[in-house]
Amino acid sequence: MTPLLTREDCLSADERDPLAMYRNRFDLPEGIIYLDGNSLGVLPRDAAARANRVIHQEWGTDLIGSWNTHRWFEMPVRIGEKISELIGGTGGACVATDTTSLNIFKTLGAALDIQSQDHPRRRVVVAERESFPTDLYMAEGMIRTLDSGYELRLIDDALTLDDALDDDVAVVLLTQVNYRTGRLWDMAATTSKIQAAGALVIWDLCHSIGAVPIALGSANVDFAVGCTYKYLNGGPGSPAFVWVADRHVNRARQPLSGWWGHQKPFEMTVRYEPSTGIRRYLTGTQPMISLATMEVGVDIALEVDQTALRTKSLELTSLFISLVEERIPHHPLTLITPRQDDERGSHVSLRHPEGFAVMKALIANGVIGDYREPEVLRFGITPLYLGYTDVWDAVEALRRVLDEELWRAPEFQIRGAVT
Amino acid sequence: MTPLLTREDCLSADERDPLAMYRNRFDLPEGIIYLDGNSLGVLPRDAAARANRVIHQEWGTDLIGSWNTHRWFEMPVRIGEKISELIGGTGGACVATDTTSLNIFKTLGAALDIQSQDHPRRRVVVAERESFPTDLYMAEGMIRTLDSGYELRLIDDALTLDDALDDDVAVVLLTQVNYRTGRLWDMAATTSKIQAAGALVIWDLCHSIGAVPIALGSANVDFAVGCTYKYLNGGPGSPAFVWVADRHVNRARQPLSGWWGHQKPFEMTVRYEPSTGIRRYLTGTQPMISLATMEVGVDIALEVDQTALRTKSLELTSLFISLVEERIPHHPLTLITPRQDDERGSHVSLRHPEGFAVMKALIANGVIGDYREPEVLRFGITPLYLGYTDVWDAVEALRRVLDEELWRAPEFQIRGAVT
Repeated sequence: MTPLLTREDCLSADERDPLAMYRNRFDLPEGIIYLDGNSLGVLPRDAAARANRVIHQEWGTDLIGSWNTHRWFEMPVRIGEKISELIGGTGGACVATDTTSLNIFKTLGAALDIQSQDHPRRRVVVAERESFPTDLYMAEGMIRTLDSGYELRLIDDALTLDDALDDDVAVVLLTQVNYRTGRLWDMAATTSKIQAAGALVIWDLCHSIGAVPIALGSANVDFAVGCTYKYLNGGPGSPAFVWVADRHVNRARQPLSGWWGHQKPFEMTVRYEPSTGIRRYLTGTQPMISLATMEVGVDIALEVDQTALRTKSLELTSLFISLVEERIPHHPLTLITPRQDDERGSHVSLRHPEGFAVMKALIANGVIGDYREPEVLRFGITPLYLGYTDVWDAVEALRRVLDEELWRAPEFQIRGAVT
Repeated sequence: MTPLLTREDCLSADERDPLAMYRNRFDLPEGIIYLDGNSLGVLPRDAAARANRVIHQEWGTDLIGSWNTHRWFEMPVRIGEKISELIGGTGGACVATDTTSLNIFKTLGAALDIQSQDHPRRRVVVAERESFPTDLYMAEGMIRTLDSGYELRLIDDALTLDDALDDDVAVVLLTQVNYRTGRLWDMAATTSKIQAAGALVIWDLCHSIGAVPIALGSANVDFAVGCTYKYLNGGPGSPAFVWVADRHVNRARQPLSGWWGHQKPFEMTVRYEPSTGIRRYLTGTQPMISLATMEVGVDIALEVDQTALRTKSLELTSLFISLVEERIPHHPLTLITPRQDDERGSHVSLRHPEGFAVMKALIANGVIGDYREPEVLRFGITPLYLGYTDVWDAVEALRRVLDEELWRAPEFQIRGAVT
């Protein structure tokens, strides 16, 4: 890509953007540039209507009959099929349910169950020290519950994945795009390496689904989980998903064996009999208003050409990096996101010693990113509803906050929860 | 209560009903009598406005900032406090989150953790064979995961709770009101008996909260869970709750240790450190639209005098039973709900050999109850929005279906999922 180093260049790029029309599918607030869609996606214009249909017609009028007439009971599987299509899930199946944390527990339980049959001596779970912490916490909870010689091994700068993969490893839990740095794993090559070492892999897609093309089937992935409220614009806390390769799905139980995962949930039998197929990854009754509303975001994502989306995403993140380096060179900003296109997801992170105050000042100046400990300014560059000029304007706002030291104002120094 | 055996008596009783005004707080569909509020409660009139505020203002406009400005992150605890008040939760704390099934897994894990410290030889979980099956399935999943000598012992007609309580019992999981029969346990006496035997108790309140006065604190309960989409009218699949006595809350971890339950969730530490207090029963990000909408039903329930509610509930269920016996004596209907007021929740169940077809015919005639295997017609008598005349009319419809054999029509013989 030719550098777009003037605002006029960016305006021209917006005019040529083949994805520009998707912006109109969302209600974007006036007067701000929203660079936090990697944390909470924006509101699809059709989402409120969908929620109101569930509330007035399905709940209010049709009441209990909606489990059948509006196919509520099938909704997790029906939406799961759409998500599976979005992530290239040929050779596996997906269900939309619960939270990412819970789905990690389920898949980890199932993967360890399979390994206890195939390779009972493999009792190590490998995960990333820099992973979003809930992945580690859930693995810790699982290992603590099993209480029989399992352990968690963390990879980091000192212990690479290659070094960690020995004959004790049962399962590897990786996040495709790191929440803090935006670093992207090579899913196919890494999956292949893990499986060659005799382990199973669980991919956490929270920071990649909807922003990075994913092909679980062709990468021969074992398990995947992820959320729908970031790049899929499913709504705050909208239900997550779990995907399992066909070769595994009926081999193992997942530990959270509730009635929604039973083969015959309405026969009210005393013993649990796992459903054949992906339904066994369900546990209890799902939050229908949030679940149905989420489908609107998934439907939009399915319309989009994933290659064009990836191209635009890389152009925007690359533009962001170039503009920061060109226009804000004299400040202690450190890029922690990979420069190489094939190693980068769809957000860009910069460290700054006063990162917390800088982000608060930037938000006060109409550019919403977020802050993550330690010192990290995080900018989600969502190609579905952001343009090139948005990126230019955001960097310009950051330049002003730093050049004019706006972040030094006392109101930006006060620490409070920033999510 | 004087028998109300004419429709005029019922009309008069409705005129005297001190709770009659609550009916206007709900949108009830025209032309039907809804006797399934024990499965899915009705739509509060204010619920749609609340959902729309979350969608348009909080999600659409305020976006990521809503975690702080609209206190999304605190919502599970804030609503949990209200639920705790509703169930007499003095001496404990409650959080609204996830599903009943998952909260059973959490409390069972914590209770077993406590017992493994206090009485490590106690490795039996007692539950009810006639329990709603997910309680058994989750206990089965927990025991299977622990894989170290735990077992499930089921009480039933052949093995009473008294017989089951020996020195091996760690935890007893009971449902206050049985989903099928409507049988009500004496919570205080039963809790006392279980604790005297050295075990801990988990009460499932799904079929009692919002219909039966509950006093967890004065009954010295250890743990409780329940759902909000039945008598609390929280909406389809609205998040459940978990309550834990103060004496236990910081003693044990629950196994589903996700980041929302961490003491410092935004410090992104590698190790899980459970939050002090009830927050540790949280796991992952909650479905905010469903959660916020649910609060509307909880708020209504908190306005209601629980004693008056119980009085009306007992009058209505007693009326239902009397009218069936008086007006439909010549059919093979068997009452399986206790006649004694202090043994009955707020629904009435009758067996009929053709129960499935009878319920389908009754629904086609404007009275919505539900069917549960085997042969059980179930009628939820929700005192908040049903009146005495509704009960009279419902029994009259049932009489017609049986006397005129309307259930024999071919369209009512076809089996399909009835939830």
